[in-house]
Amino acid sequence: MKITVIGPGAMGLLFGGKLAACADVSLIGSNAANLEKINKEGVTIKRGDSSVTRMVPAYMAGTCTEPVDVVMIFTKAYQIRDVLTQNRALIGPDTLLLTLQNGAGHDRVMREFADSAHVLVGTTKQGSSRESGCVIINSGLGETVFGGTAAEGEPSPDPERLEELRSIFEKSGFPCAVSNNVRFEVWNKLMINASASVLSGVLQVPQGYVESNAHAWSICQDLIREICAAAAGEGAIFDPEEQILRVQDHLRKAPGGFTSIYSDIKNGRKTEADFICGAVVRAAQDQGLRVPVQETILRLVHAMEER
Amino acid sequence: MKITVIGPGAMGLLFGGKLAACADVSLIGSNAANLEKINKEGVTIKRGDSSVTRMVPAYMAGTCTEPVDVVMIFTKAYQIRDVLTQNRALIGPDTLLLTLQNGAGHDRVMREFADSAHVLVGTTKQGSSRESGCVIINSGLGETVFGGTAAEGEPSPDPERLEELRSIFEKSGFPCAVSNNVRFEVWNKLMINASASVLSGVLQVPQGYVESNAHAWSICQDLIREICAAAAGEGAIFDPEEQILRVQDHLRKAPGGFTSIYSDIKNGRKTEADFICGAVVRAAQDQGLRVPVQETILRLVHAMEER
Repeated sequence: MKITVIGPGAMGLLFGGKLAACADVSLIGSNAANLEKINKEGVTIKRGDSSVTRMVPAYMAGTCTEPVDVVMIFTKAYQIRDVLTQNRALIGPDTLLLTLQNGAGHDRVMREFADSAHVLVGTTKQGSSRESGCVIINSGLGETVFGGTAAEGEPSPDPERLEELRSIFEKSGFPCAVSNNVRFEVWNKLMINASASVLSGVLQVPQGYVESNAHAWSICQDLIREICAAAAGEGAIFDPEEQILRVQDHLRKAPGGFTSIYSDIKNGRKTEADFICGAVVRAAQDQGLRVPVQETILRLVHAMEER
Repeated sequence: MKITVIGPGAMGLLFGGKLAACADVSLIGSNAANLEKINKEGVTIKRGDSSVTRMVPAYMAGTCTEPVDVVMIFTKAYQIRDVLTQNRALIGPDTLLLTLQNGAGHDRVMREFADSAHVLVGTTKQGSSRESGCVIINSGLGETVFGGTAAEGEPSPDPERLEELRSIFEKSGFPCAVSNNVRFEVWNKLMINASASVLSGVLQVPQGYVESNAHAWSICQDLIREICAAAAGEGAIFDPEEQILRVQDHLRKAPGGFTSIYSDIKNGRKTEADFICGAVVRAAQDQGLRVPVQETILRLVHAMEER
């Protein structure tokens, strides 16, 4: 199976490097020096005391001309449209597009490049941080879940191909499941990201503060209730009070943690808020619902990004 | 007329120092060293090239035992209850209580110490910044407006006494008017403070950014619309679209300005948000209205104060 991973960041290198054990993997990036390094030194994946290096060919974006079986997108969420446009030659009539990026709404963008039978989204509990251009540290070994997003009446992905892909993930060292309700998984992850994570970014505090400070926690609970309302309209049914307890538990377990949106705001970078809070706002709008707290937080994040 | 000014900060020293020309003024504070300095060196008011020094007796809070004609409160808004409790001996049956502090809702607290015929609120366009413990620089020479806040059917302040007080203000160098609709003046000032000012604090930007950044300006407009809705219930009727233009004009005239709530958040101090955003939230609640954007901003400010 030919798999191309677009975006050789920490997560892209982790999946590209490990999947290369069981599939014909290539990487696509846009930093020439980094691609050269990967081609010369291979991808090294460290975990605890062990370290594996695997050669994976890396190409400059826009230079590949042959369709592949699977395109995995590991760029920043807001870059999906641009990288798929630039690398459109990779996408043939049978190519599956897959993203495991945080947030929701990616499938809307991916649908501009493939039909409902070829667009897959998912979530992963794998963690990865980059040590250098082609060396990553794999932390977090949890499950990866993916599935199609076809609406009722639309063509769904071929179950055999999904199983084949799942099996390659599994053999490559990624515990993996195909989900028939992947939207639920996506919203389940969004529940924390679009509440506590984004709030810790706006307040510039470790994530535990969101739960330990009464005012922050009050906002966070409003956000969770709004997310549940928006998710319900997409067929993902959550009990708000249960979710509040789940988020609280998550924060209490790692109060000192810093979220990626915290770092992005701190370092003046563009955040993925449009696919986190933005996904909630769009889903709510589609149902004629108002989510005023989420809307306010989203606009604050953008105003902070543009300072 | 005996006037006691509680809170010898920049504004307290400005009013205390200038009113001392035409009234029997005393100051009350809680910093012994500063009070000693005021008693020794007097209060110096600088404006442009001119400088006036006037001796004004300054006392430690809680040590005055005689009622006075007027108690002016120039502490931080959230200290009103504490300082009036501590200096209750100043308040006799004929004592007028007056505050010109930013925000609304002060009269609710003052009513715990005097009836509707003796509680005055107002606004001032005078500006003052402290150069040292007893030297201030007077900037901004605009009008001071005050009046009673009695509801229909409640006893109102004696018009003759209000005129007497106004006349002392005027003779002391403060252009001054008595207003029969002082709530309107208060909400008029709140319109900017509870929208652009607080938002510039949350975003930690100069106030012009609130108008020049599309996301911030969108939040600001929501805040203005919510303030107009809350004000209407208190009998202060504003056209939201007119107010949006007024706030925009204000921000365009001084884009580089920093608000006091900006400095308070920056320096980790308690802000007056409870009397700014909080006044809007309370007024809305009294009418069964929701002001979700204002509620979110208020909680964010508190979460930031407590970091």
